Amino acid sequence: MSDPFVVVGGDAAGLSAASKCRRTDPERDVVVFEKGEWISYAHCGTPYFVKGEVDRLEDLLSLSPEAAEERGIDLRRGHEVVAVDTDAETVTVDAGGTTFEQPYGDLLVATGARAVSDPIEGATLDGVFTLHGLDHAAAIRAYLTPPDEFDVAALGGGDALNEPEVERYGGMTSPETVAVVGAGYVGVEMAEAFDAWDLDVHLFQRSERPVPGFGEAVGDAVTEHLRESGVTLHLGEEVVRLDGEAGHVDRVVCESGSELAVDAALVGIGIRPNTELLDDTPVELGASGAVATDAHGRTSVDGVYAAGDVAEMPHTVTGTATWDPLGLPANRAGRAIGATVGGDPTPVGSVAGTAMVKAFDLECGRTGLLDHDRAREAGFDPVSETITAGSRSGYYPGAAETTVTLTADRDTGRLLGGSIVGADRAAIRIDTLATALGGEMTVAELERQDLGYAPPFSPVWDPVLVAAKVLNGSLE
Amino acid sequence: MSDPFVVVGGDAAGLSAASKCRRTDPERDVVVFEKGEWISYAHCGTPYFVKGEVDRLEDLLSLSPEAAEERGIDLRRGHEVVAVDTDAETVTVDAGGTTFEQPYGDLLVATGARAVSDPIEGATLDGVFTLHGLDHAAAIRAYLTPPDEFDVAALGGGDALNEPEVERYGGMTSPETVAVVGAGYVGVEMAEAFDAWDLDVHLFQRSERPVPGFGEAVGDAVTEHLRESGVTLHLGEEVVRLDGEAGHVDRVVCESGSELAVDAALVGIGIRPNTELLDDTPVELGASGAVATDAHGRTSVDGVYAAGDVAEMPHTVTGTATWDPLGLPANRAGRAIGATVGGDPTPVGSVAGTAMVKAFDLECGRTGLLDHDRAREAGFDPVSETITAGSRSGYYPGAAETTVTLTADRDTGRLLGGSIVGADRAAIRIDTLATALGGEMTVAELERQDLGYAPPFSPVWDPVLVAAKVLNGSLE
Repeated sequence: MSDPFVVVGGDAAGLSAASKCRRTDPERDVVVFEKGEWISYAHCGTPYFVKGEVDRLEDLLSLSPEAAEERGIDLRRGHEVVAVDTDAETVTVDAGGTTFEQPYGDLLVATGARAVSDPIEGATLDGVFTLHGLDHAAAIRAYLTPPDEFDVAALGGGDALNEPEVERYGGMTSPETVAVVGAGYVGVEMAEAFDAWDLDVHLFQRSERPVPGFGEAVGDAVTEHLRESGVTLHLGEEVVRLDGEAGHVDRVVCESGSELAVDAALVGIGIRPNTELLDDTPVELGASGAVATDAHGRTSVDGVYAAGDVAEMPHTVTGTATWDPLGLPANRAGRAIGATVGGDPTPVGSVAGTAMVKAFDLECGRTGLLDHDRAREAGFDPVSETITAGSRSGYYPGAAETTVTLTADRDTGRLLGGSIVGADRAAIRIDTLATALGGEMTVAELERQDLGYAPPFSPVWDPVLVAAKVLNGSLE
Repeated sequence: MSDPFVVVGGDAAGLSAASKCRRTDPERDVVVFEKGEWISYAHCGTPYFVKGEVDRLEDLLSLSPEAAEERGIDLRRGHEVVAVDTDAETVTVDAGGTTFEQPYGDLLVATGARAVSDPIEGATLDGVFTLHGLDHAAAIRAYLTPPDEFDVAALGGGDALNEPEVERYGGMTSPETVAVVGAGYVGVEMAEAFDAWDLDVHLFQRSERPVPGFGEAVGDAVTEHLRESGVTLHLGEEVVRLDGEAGHVDRVVCESGSELAVDAALVGIGIRPNTELLDDTPVELGASGAVATDAHGRTSVDGVYAAGDVAEMPHTVTGTATWDPLGLPANRAGRAIGATVGGDPTPVGSVAGTAMVKAFDLECGRTGLLDHDRAREAGFDPVSETITAGSRSGYYPGAAETTVTLTADRDTGRLLGGSIVGADRAAIRIDTLATALGGEMTVAELERQDLGYAPPFSPVWDPVLVAAKVLNGSLE
């Protein structure tokens, strides 16, 4: 144990790195410290657990502690790393009150991010949740379940579950009206989850459209579809306070002064990287506030790596550091760092901010630079076009309107980003655009890509190609 | 009318070219000669018309004669171009017995291809079809419809329909057993169409697997699924003869000597380019037998272009001329030639052979070079890997096994081609691989593409990325 690879954080990036390091160099000692009880769980699956489409908590675990041990990883749950000494090359670990020093050969900081709720007063009231972590998800589902039907064992999760807190919510009268604060993808997915429990769902968004990162066309389509699905939208309304009596939320108050009586609130207004562990170290943060890294995930200090929601990565289009905390880049960077530390130097790749979200029956995708201000900051002269075309040949049953927005640089014609929304295979089409960004294609090149055509799956000119044709025409 | 753009053939390539030329140069005279009555119809939709999912023939027309005229195209149906004089720059047109000379400034040969049935004796018997053209499709559906329910007007098609022939089939007793000869995509789609009419469907294929162009993994999955769907497969059986009494097919005879009693047969064993018009001209054909063209669709003779199923195009991966007659490249090349002729030189792009096919509930896709022999002929050292992974996060309902095969060049790591098969959004994923081919990516680059992830649509590592990881590992 003289030169171990020490990983702080047992989630996507951390465990991907640990596993890959062991596979690359089976002799290397690998220790993972996780301060909580849960490891390697699917954040993005939690709305579907709340909804009830995913039955049990353990269904969301991609790696069990036993499987981690089988890979030869020395996994320590309930161990919080509280300090890093980059000179001595040690970390200080708090194991339930007892602390010890752990030397490292290489160190990976994969401490993730946490949900932000502090801009909103009253976010610590009972009945207010942030959906960060499986215990939160379990508490919400417990609260939604009528007390006479509630059975904590049915949620799964075993020893890792914070049972007293979940039991407490299980005993409460189920809510009838919920405010979802923030209409990013967590907010939209949770609106669907609450609707499935027949709640009266109110979705608040500070800006004029939901899913702002997906651009205007997607935002408009989602607005219409959420309304049709029975969600009440409060757009252009900033929630500033949650009020409550006897410690339980009973009112949402907006900056405009408007109020709404509720029984529960879900706050999904953003996340913040957990960089505090590095406060007293020379490890540098980037402009975004997340940890700055190079093409191999190395920080400014030799032997110290960072990956996942705590770290920046190079942007696919601009090439400069960006903080776009998403699942695939976390896994990919972790895996690459594990290979590098194991002796096989592997770049972490770049992040295009590719994301997909399901909003009831609508599928949405986005990738790259959509926002013109951000594109201009990166030195581009952005031009966008939005088209609507069929997802299949028009005569084939099931063809659905698919709206595609593409943004390109006027001078070079280079594709900068895009979004897609529709009811039939719309989200997965974003991968075509993400790959075109990865290939640094111009819109003219995208227009000539030899995509597939078959009446049940795509018209002759796929909506992506129609958009490229139209944008290319307006660039000429 | 001194310098008209003359187009021979009123289908995808021809009418795309005519339309685009008029839009690019609204002053240019554009004449389209079509020997038949149908123009611009969706070949790929005909199986779904036979099946009954598409109601009427006119649903399959992407451009009506009236709409073509509105675009300023001088469309002449029932006009067959019978000769080309490239010295005089004229074509000879037969308009129902009267011939005349038509001068051209630019000429596009878009005469398409025709279904091959001549290797099979007896293919002219009644009850034997090739599904080439809407009259064939109408005749098949007429034959499938019980005589007491048959109504020729219900098929649609108006004046263009060959009504006597369709009426004749409408009066026949409907078939109970059908042989589909050839399990390419037409054969597989027609097996599904016949099954929908409750026929006993027998699918014959000379090689050991259906959809041979899609590779072994897709072939195996389709074999299993077709059998589960009730289709009887006769693999490794070459049909050499169709026998019949009183002029109507009643038996299929294979080279092996095995025989099967049938009431109908659909022959889908391939197509051949209609190059005969150019036999006595200096326009050169390529090694494939189709018309040789350059990057702008020009033939070896000045002012003469060729596009669509009659022409070769450059291959995306090899860069050399190939004959892969498919819908999108025909439309794209036609459109590019129309722009070029109209004064805006536009490359036709390349063809990767990207194709999708629906086999009952299975979705299949293929692109690029899959076959190792063909890859070696092109100078590559091919390596392939096949993986099976989930289409969605494993815990999300509806996740389906998705099998991906990737082929790469061992020396350079360059991606050469791929195939995908599965029940959930499998076919549309081929566009990601087609775009990676267009970007000349290596497998390592593909592995690092920032694709989307959301539990309902894709796992963290999309099956395409899983395949890239595995193939990349075996290249190292």
